[in-house]
Amino acid sequence: MGKYSRPASQPELRPRFRITRGMKIAFGPGKADLLEGIVKTGSIGKAAKRMGMSYMRAWSLIQEMNKCFKQPVIVSVRGGHEHGGAELTPAGRRVLASYREMEKAALIAARTDWRALRKMLHD
Amino acid sequence: MGKYSRPASQPELRPRFRITRGMKIAFGPGKADLLEGIVKTGSIGKAAKRMGMSYMRAWSLIQEMNKCFKQPVIVSVRGGHEHGGAELTPAGRRVLASYREMEKAALIAARTDWRALRKMLHD
Repeated sequence: MGKYSRPASQPELRPRFRITRGMKIAFGPGKADLLEGIVKTGSIGKAAKRMGMSYMRAWSLIQEMNKCFKQPVIVSVRGGHEHGGAELTPAGRRVLASYREMEKAALIAARTDWRALRKMLHD
Repeated sequence: MGKYSRPASQPELRPRFRITRGMKIAFGPGKADLLEGIVKTGSIGKAAKRMGMSYMRAWSLIQEMNKCFKQPVIVSVRGGHEHGGAELTPAGRRVLASYREMEKAALIAARTDWRALRKMLHD
């Protein structure tokens, strides 16, 4: 973000995009983190646990995503979602990559205004 | 966002920035909307009501902001916050304006990736 990194207690700017349709959220920060967790752990259950989320909640988020996108974002491997593993489909990987790119681009684009805002905040 | 506007039920991209310090949120979408509501209504109570928020909650958000920023973002006018009116200070107006600028810049910066993501979603 800047020329030097700041300690964790300094103000930080975090971009979050939501893809909405009417009142429904098709995709957002929680779902992105869940997909990323599945990439890292290879398991819906483990990804959910890392986020302090129940398996049922994670499963329902995945079903929402699979309904919103034309292609499924997750597939089960080695014998079913619950006890086996899961991984992102090529579509899921593209969704996650595009989302993270949007976040990066947003941070860069916001830099000038963030610099002005940052100066108005206490250290 | 595009060459033509879409009906409300079509997927939409919404940028949301959070300014955090450790676990605390110094500023974000809710606070921005509250400031905007005060600009529009000239009253903390009316702004809170429009957001379905209690006066106490709005007041506590304002106190948080006033602590995080070097200068207060809100001042009372015509005899006190609760029964009189309120308005943004010059600092408050700058904070709100910079925040909205960041959102606009983020949407523009995310456009290419959003176009790719958009195609992957059901209409």
